[in-house]
Amino acid sequence: MEQVRRGKTFIISGPSGVGKGTVLKELFKTRDMYYSVSATTRAPRDGEVDGVHYHFMDAEEFRTMIAEDALLEHAEYAGNYYGTPKRYVDEAMDSGRDVILEIELQGARQVHAKRPETVRIFIGPPSWEELERRLVSRGTDTPEKIAQRLQRARIELESADEYDYLIINDTVEKAAAELDAILCAEHCRVDDRLDQILGK
Amino acid sequence: MEQVRRGKTFIISGPSGVGKGTVLKELFKTRDMYYSVSATTRAPRDGEVDGVHYHFMDAEEFRTMIAEDALLEHAEYAGNYYGTPKRYVDEAMDSGRDVILEIELQGARQVHAKRPETVRIFIGPPSWEELERRLVSRGTDTPEKIAQRLQRARIELESADEYDYLIINDTVEKAAAELDAILCAEHCRVDDRLDQILGK
Repeated sequence: MEQVRRGKTFIISGPSGVGKGTVLKELFKTRDMYYSVSATTRAPRDGEVDGVHYHFMDAEEFRTMIAEDALLEHAEYAGNYYGTPKRYVDEAMDSGRDVILEIELQGARQVHAKRPETVRIFIGPPSWEELERRLVSRGTDTPEKIAQRLQRARIELESADEYDYLIINDTVEKAAAELDAILCAEHCRVDDRLDQILGK
Repeated sequence: MEQVRRGKTFIISGPSGVGKGTVLKELFKTRDMYYSVSATTRAPRDGEVDGVHYHFMDAEEFRTMIAEDALLEHAEYAGNYYGTPKRYVDEAMDSGRDVILEIELQGARQVHAKRPETVRIFIGPPSWEELERRLVSRGTDTPEKIAQRLQRARIELESADEYDYLIINDTVEKAAAELDAILCAEHCRVDDRLDQILGK
């Protein structure tokens, strides 16, 4: 029986409005990957399904997961916990699927500290002006919210050098093709493949 | 005026008979790269063109290049010098072209010692039996020569872990696609791209 090749985990970060979701949607057209679902203690909103949008749980359960080191990363935001359960990530990788963690800088740092082999990819805008334009044109945020997002984006962009790869999202197709190439290349790393040579 | 992005250098190694030339030919169908031409002191054979097959020179010229550190790597083989002149590699990279150095293990080590940023790619056979089959089916070598090549291949394969990437050449199309992905991914490295973000 052929051994299943283990999947790898890829962190995707980038400022709000940069188009991470659109790029990933394009990638998922051709790649079967596990998009990690976060755990949270916040209440489900209308239409949100447990296990699909989030793994919903109460604060006690979440704290137990922290105590048992069952999370790859976690944070508290507006009085609620958010985090990435190890379990589903590991199950996916064991079954040979690659994993996408769409998380922000703080989470990326935590995951990388626990698992330095995780590949970190930052998606950036072609320019600052274009990021502003995209945030405004979504039409979902108040000017105050947009200003907040831009302030946060500035901090995130300044930390892009902590990542392994930087993709500039000028067109979705190009960005998705680059992401696809990075995934492919990372599976060609010598460390992952040495057992394939000389029948070792 | 837009600044030309500097090219990168990629080392390709792999045992005789593994199909490096065929994979590169497939790659060059879609990528304009500089395939580095070696310098040598051996006499040109019939049909060999100076500057195309080799940069032909005499031993004194070659030794001057060594003394002036004008070679990325060099070796002596069967009484002749062979080496990679820095000049053409640098000119290509300065003009924005990527460079392929098809060299063997010793040369790869020398280049990497001088330029640790060089990306090292090893092309391996799907199996030992398949490498034997390919060497025999070329029909160009005597059994003794084939035995020699296989012995050398064994040593090379055992050093594959010194490389960054390992491509298994089971089909030319797949191997060329992986090589293409590695080239693309390496251009997405954060260090190469940080100047593209925030208009830095």
